[in-house]
Amino acid sequence: MYLDARPIILVVGVLVAILGATMYVPALVDFANDNSDWQVFAFSGSFCLVIGGGMFLATRGTISGLTTRQAFLMTVLVWVALAAFGALPFYWSGLVPHYTDAFFESMSGITTTGATIMIGLDIMPPGILLWRGILQWIGGLGIIVMAISVLPMLQIGGMQLFKAEAFETTDKILPRATQISGSITVIFMSITLLCGLAYLAAGMNILDASVHAMTTVATGGYSTRDLSIGFFDSLAVDMTATIFMIIGSLPFILYVQALAGDFMPTFRDSQVRAFFGILLVAIVIGVIIQETSQVNMGGQAWRHAVVNVTSILTGTGYATTAYDKWGTASMALFFFVTFIGGCAGSTSCGIKIFRLQILLSTVRQHLARVLYPHGVIVQRYNGKAVDDGVVSAVIVFFFLYVLSFAVSAILLSLTGLDALTAMSGAGTAIANVGPGVGPKIGPSATFEGLNLTAKWILSITMLVGRLEIMAVLVLLSPRFWRV
Amino acid sequence: MYLDARPIILVVGVLVAILGATMYVPALVDFANDNSDWQVFAFSGSFCLVIGGGMFLATRGTISGLTTRQAFLMTVLVWVALAAFGALPFYWSGLVPHYTDAFFESMSGITTTGATIMIGLDIMPPGILLWRGILQWIGGLGIIVMAISVLPMLQIGGMQLFKAEAFETTDKILPRATQISGSITVIFMSITLLCGLAYLAAGMNILDASVHAMTTVATGGYSTRDLSIGFFDSLAVDMTATIFMIIGSLPFILYVQALAGDFMPTFRDSQVRAFFGILLVAIVIGVIIQETSQVNMGGQAWRHAVVNVTSILTGTGYATTAYDKWGTASMALFFFVTFIGGCAGSTSCGIKIFRLQILLSTVRQHLARVLYPHGVIVQRYNGKAVDDGVVSAVIVFFFLYVLSFAVSAILLSLTGLDALTAMSGAGTAIANVGPGVGPKIGPSATFEGLNLTAKWILSITMLVGRLEIMAVLVLLSPRFWRV
Repeated sequence: MYLDARPIILVVGVLVAILGATMYVPALVDFANDNSDWQVFAFSGSFCLVIGGGMFLATRGTISGLTTRQAFLMTVLVWVALAAFGALPFYWSGLVPHYTDAFFESMSGITTTGATIMIGLDIMPPGILLWRGILQWIGGLGIIVMAISVLPMLQIGGMQLFKAEAFETTDKILPRATQISGSITVIFMSITLLCGLAYLAAGMNILDASVHAMTTVATGGYSTRDLSIGFFDSLAVDMTATIFMIIGSLPFILYVQALAGDFMPTFRDSQVRAFFGILLVAIVIGVIIQETSQVNMGGQAWRHAVVNVTSILTGTGYATTAYDKWGTASMALFFFVTFIGGCAGSTSCGIKIFRLQILLSTVRQHLARVLYPHGVIVQRYNGKAVDDGVVSAVIVFFFLYVLSFAVSAILLSLTGLDALTAMSGAGTAIANVGPGVGPKIGPSATFEGLNLTAKWILSITMLVGRLEIMAVLVLLSPRFWRV
Repeated sequence: MYLDARPIILVVGVLVAILGATMYVPALVDFANDNSDWQVFAFSGSFCLVIGGGMFLATRGTISGLTTRQAFLMTVLVWVALAAFGALPFYWSGLVPHYTDAFFESMSGITTTGATIMIGLDIMPPGILLWRGILQWIGGLGIIVMAISVLPMLQIGGMQLFKAEAFETTDKILPRATQISGSITVIFMSITLLCGLAYLAAGMNILDASVHAMTTVATGGYSTRDLSIGFFDSLAVDMTATIFMIIGSLPFILYVQALAGDFMPTFRDSQVRAFFGILLVAIVIGVIIQETSQVNMGGQAWRHAVVNVTSILTGTGYATTAYDKWGTASMALFFFVTFIGGCAGSTSCGIKIFRLQILLSTVRQHLARVLYPHGVIVQRYNGKAVDDGVVSAVIVFFFLYVLSFAVSAILLSLTGLDALTAMSGAGTAIANVGPGVGPKIGPSATFEGLNLTAKWILSITMLVGRLEIMAVLVLLSPRFWRV
């Protein structure tokens, strides 16, 4: 079967053009601030508009519905293209030495990872800071739309569990995506606006508030300050960040239902409950570690634990303190919390709560089957029976996740990174969290000092993690191309 | 359903008595060498004989066949009892300060892990060195018998795939175990004898040769020297160790078939092929790392790579050099190789090759189902169709393996270990390898300096890993006790 690339080029073209259009926002801000960088953004934006527009014009009218293979290829190419074009302002501004760095920063943005190679954020021109925020915001919105519309249809990682019943037709991805994008975009924008207002009320200036609002709701983690939100040293900022990181980590489909007046699903959802349970346990451990090593005590310990643990569990990546220096145990705590992630259908990353729940219920079912060979046990999730396809997709996801992590860590260490940096880097990249642990890539450091090869490996790892492993790995399978 | 403990006490009693009887061997050797430690062994042996004999006498005649629950409980208690009683000579000899250390050393022995807390092996009395070898040899033999007879019946980790067809009856574990033990024991003894002769021919003295023969074939890794087999600095010793570690890592059931004149299964077995494939790849990476960092070149690099990679992949734990100092990448290489392990039904440990193969074939099947929703794909292993029960058991194993590793690493770090030591310690314990990586527990260090809590956590982790996770975790499930 011949793979028709034209619909893919069309979609990529449209999105690159839209990305180009958004570059005029930082261009305007820099222009208004008398910063010469406005030219970089105006030029990058026009460049994207021309290329994207050209791709669209050359292929328009060719789209009718996508095959599964086209959908896989499109998914990956969209994210690669957005990262590649989104990198242009970083590169052309001259703020980074290599295109590699620009691509890393852009990929880290669009995948809402938040790992940065930039130092001296506090004195950067506003346009660049805004652009980093916009990239994460677009990435966050994009992933929710994809998680609700495209991933279930591709049966990636068991996401078919969340296939909205209204969209059960098999072959029309684009209309479905368009329809859902509408309501999700409105909700996403409203939450971002609320978050921005809360940051303003907490005392941030308009630029800080805008950027942080975009990167909080997207659980991205880019800040306007080298010290991250620790710079503001404000309880109100910490609380705002915590609340909106959590909001960004819950299933957005629940907000759609809540807006329709139905709040029960949110409280009954087993992912949501488990998410809060894990969050609480991790926070308590964080407090114990701080108090044991006497780094912070009482209220201070709680405050730091709440913000930083929420930040890492949700895959945001803000820090208010060098949490990996609370004591030897904090490094292991944050290393493992990195992998967990938030709820499906949110902006958060990682393995995700529902997958851990399905894996645990598979364990329970297996146990029951061994102990009572004659009993019949139905595997349930959130009160409903789970079919075997979902379980096997979750398992495949988990195995490939661990495998990708290991391969990435080994490759990173082959470039010369020490074992801890390699493992923590691979972990934080695949889980799209942002900071790792340790002196080189921990919360008080940046990825700037790594070698170029390591930056490429990390960029690819972020993409693999963000697209739930399978979407990228499927392209490596000979079977995919053989048809 | 009431759980009748008497058959369990009976089996544990018999095995403790047998363990006691074997203690007379080091007693005799120490006596012949005029070493006063012979009294410790004679007393420990008599103590075990009395306790074990008493347990047997109190419960004899009560056994008729075990339920699944009894089999689980028995499996765990047997290993705990052997470790606890096997620790007595270490403790009573006064060579270790705490019973914790003695238990750690004994558990590390019986689980064929090979992590040691002892320093100054070269000047230790022969009895103690011999006892460490005997513990590993018993553990190695025990695990093969268990892997072939008990684990498949308990459906642990997909081991039912290797259920010998002759033993398909469901409820008679003991006769089956007895029957298989016979032929396996003879083969195991013969291989050990051959290995010992090879070591003698390579120039070792009789004590070194005996102990190393026992710990090589058991893929245990206890040595009579602080420098491990690196002490001998002999190509012949290195080659003997490599060949017999590999023999210990292949499925022993194939030797039974080969003895019956049927060599084909060995060459056709897909586990065996994959094992050699992985070994080769890891060795080549090991050579590249050494040559890149110019630690060793050419023939030397190959020799060290062959011995040390084989040692870690098979879960033995010998070292000829501080392989974690070959370069930054060697730490990550050995960290991940630790987890792989050898073939099912051997003395080796880790996740094991066939499980990785089943997981990969699950991935392939999932992929095919997503790309061609209407095709029918049967999952195969070694040419035969694999039923869903096996796949789900393998998956449950893999998930619990990763989870146990993470929990163990976090607990270890909470006792104050740094992140690398905690992770590498948890990894090497759950995979029953022996040495970790890094300055504290790497190949040139011992576990002696760790705190007592960490030693208990590691001892339990070794047991969990050796009993393929499920056998231990099932006892933690309320469901197990509720019946």
